[in-house]
Amino acid sequence: MGPGPSNPYPEVMEAFTRPVLGHLDPDFISLLDETNERLKQVWQTQNSLTFPVSATGSAGMETAFVNFVNPGDQVVIGVNGVFGNRMCDVAQRAGATVTRVEEEWGRAIDPQRLLDAHPDPQIIAVVHAETSTGIRNDVAPIGEAKGDALLFVDCVTSLAGIPVLIDQWNVDVAYSGTQKCLGVPPGLSPVTVSDRAMERIVEKPQSWYLDLNMIKDYVTGEGARAYHHTAPISMLYALHAGLGVVLTDGLDATWQRHQECGDALHAGLPDLGFNLWAQEGHRLPELTTVTLPEGLDDTTGRKTLLERYGIEVGGGLGPVAGKVWRIGCMGHTARLRNVKMLLGALEELVEEIG
Amino acid sequence: MGPGPSNPYPEVMEAFTRPVLGHLDPDFISLLDETNERLKQVWQTQNSLTFPVSATGSAGMETAFVNFVNPGDQVVIGVNGVFGNRMCDVAQRAGATVTRVEEEWGRAIDPQRLLDAHPDPQIIAVVHAETSTGIRNDVAPIGEAKGDALLFVDCVTSLAGIPVLIDQWNVDVAYSGTQKCLGVPPGLSPVTVSDRAMERIVEKPQSWYLDLNMIKDYVTGEGARAYHHTAPISMLYALHAGLGVVLTDGLDATWQRHQECGDALHAGLPDLGFNLWAQEGHRLPELTTVTLPEGLDDTTGRKTLLERYGIEVGGGLGPVAGKVWRIGCMGHTARLRNVKMLLGALEELVEEIG
Repeated sequence: MGPGPSNPYPEVMEAFTRPVLGHLDPDFISLLDETNERLKQVWQTQNSLTFPVSATGSAGMETAFVNFVNPGDQVVIGVNGVFGNRMCDVAQRAGATVTRVEEEWGRAIDPQRLLDAHPDPQIIAVVHAETSTGIRNDVAPIGEAKGDALLFVDCVTSLAGIPVLIDQWNVDVAYSGTQKCLGVPPGLSPVTVSDRAMERIVEKPQSWYLDLNMIKDYVTGEGARAYHHTAPISMLYALHAGLGVVLTDGLDATWQRHQECGDALHAGLPDLGFNLWAQEGHRLPELTTVTLPEGLDDTTGRKTLLERYGIEVGGGLGPVAGKVWRIGCMGHTARLRNVKMLLGALEELVEEIG
Repeated sequence: MGPGPSNPYPEVMEAFTRPVLGHLDPDFISLLDETNERLKQVWQTQNSLTFPVSATGSAGMETAFVNFVNPGDQVVIGVNGVFGNRMCDVAQRAGATVTRVEEEWGRAIDPQRLLDAHPDPQIIAVVHAETSTGIRNDVAPIGEAKGDALLFVDCVTSLAGIPVLIDQWNVDVAYSGTQKCLGVPPGLSPVTVSDRAMERIVEKPQSWYLDLNMIKDYVTGEGARAYHHTAPISMLYALHAGLGVVLTDGLDATWQRHQECGDALHAGLPDLGFNLWAQEGHRLPELTTVTLPEGLDDTTGRKTLLERYGIEVGGGLGPVAGKVWRIGCMGHTARLRNVKMLLGALEELVEEIG
């Protein structure tokens, strides 16, 4: 129940045991195509360039910026946690001139501030679900009024956990990770790119490994399936299976399951002296942040949880390191039985320090 | 029996089924440390920065160049196949001025030509085992006489298949892939970096994801284990297990097994009309290239092998596309029984066109 990796679905673990096919084997290509089709459903998009980058979520972030930032481009980035801050670093390394729109950690960014931050930005970027604070930043109002800018959204902790509506929200580039609400181990970063963004793609980005112009020939059926790099076969089996679970259960049902777990946590924690930290109205169900009851030490408490109960929770980051816990309830971990178990364990912990 | 991915060891497949721990869990950190220690043995190095990059082999290549190339640096690169060529592209994107030392595909590069190509290069780079041609380029003579230059070596298809002696050969930066002679599915790129190279590291490389200054705090025990990106947990279990097989069997025995399979293939193929294509004296045992017997069509032949016998072999690339096959015998695939099976299948194929 840390901030990720979550527990993978049993079907995902089973998929890992499949024989390793070659990355040009027709049976593997079918599986890749089906994976990308499943991703389109989960992203709620028709974008033809929708596929998993062969590395973890932060490489998805880098894919977004290196392929669409030209030196000197104006990029507006919302910063209210670790991942907004990381976006600034990645964008600057790609040559962007960054305008930071800061908000206090634990509070959501007003979309209007992102829209007003620069008169004519090439890109506006925001983190949908800040894993470092448990905050949901609203995306839809930015997509409605973005003008000529491209809209980039970090969906690492939101995809399949809460509604992510790429086409409806006018999102141009989004990326996620497998190890959160998709219930798959870390290792891949699902990415989706709008046709509008593709018209502005950098011809030769600074990264060869993440060069979408080269990768798209392999991952989409449009090119000659030209070999770019060896696909991470077993991880792709795992992602294919995880998406299968999400879509068989239904995307609505999966969102609802995450919501119910979050609601149960949010209802039960304050009674034990753990106060909800993230701003009301913007709390993620899949990632809950709480302050600790008086007398409970951060490190000792987390160590006891892990060693005695086998439960991992995450510590706070940045300004709230040592003061806040981050409790994940994502993927196969998002079951009410896990919420009950955690609340029971915390009750014992609190009684002991009582 | 394609040019990779090879078949993984059974122990590797079993490792995939382990519960997914968090990337900061003490038990996982122990496994990561042990993996890095095992890698040092397989690389034959004492380099403290020896770890798997969280992406496939080509990301290892990019890690090498983005962390050590400053704009305008002189980089000499040997080019006698796809991967030497790729190195030039990656180095140029990092700002290098590249001097290409070309050799005919299928022939080895004379190390002296690499040493003589530029009076004072920052980097000399060469592919040890060219997967596109089946050629071994010699590394030791370059390390002996490299002067002030750093020596970069692509060991994607050589590591654990033929001797790779990082410290003895004075190699500064080397990278590999898991899906070849290590017998692990694709997804990680083991990298090793000398202390001498670390003195020249770029302070802020253009890639955030591959930034060694940031990554080394997490992967080595030296820093505070500061989180950089979420480690690909399950793939690391797999690599840990694959390295365990190699070291339990013994590195010498693993090299020998690859050599015996290569020798058996090289002895048996010419009798069936498949002539060895790579230059004699520089043929890789783990990756054999052959011209086809008259009357055997490339595509039809490979399709029949795959569909009737369940055997994958690779087609030729670049100037020998359609004319050459690439036969891999790596990792768990490197068993004499597989060589026998392939030779038997090819005998039938040849008889049918006879």
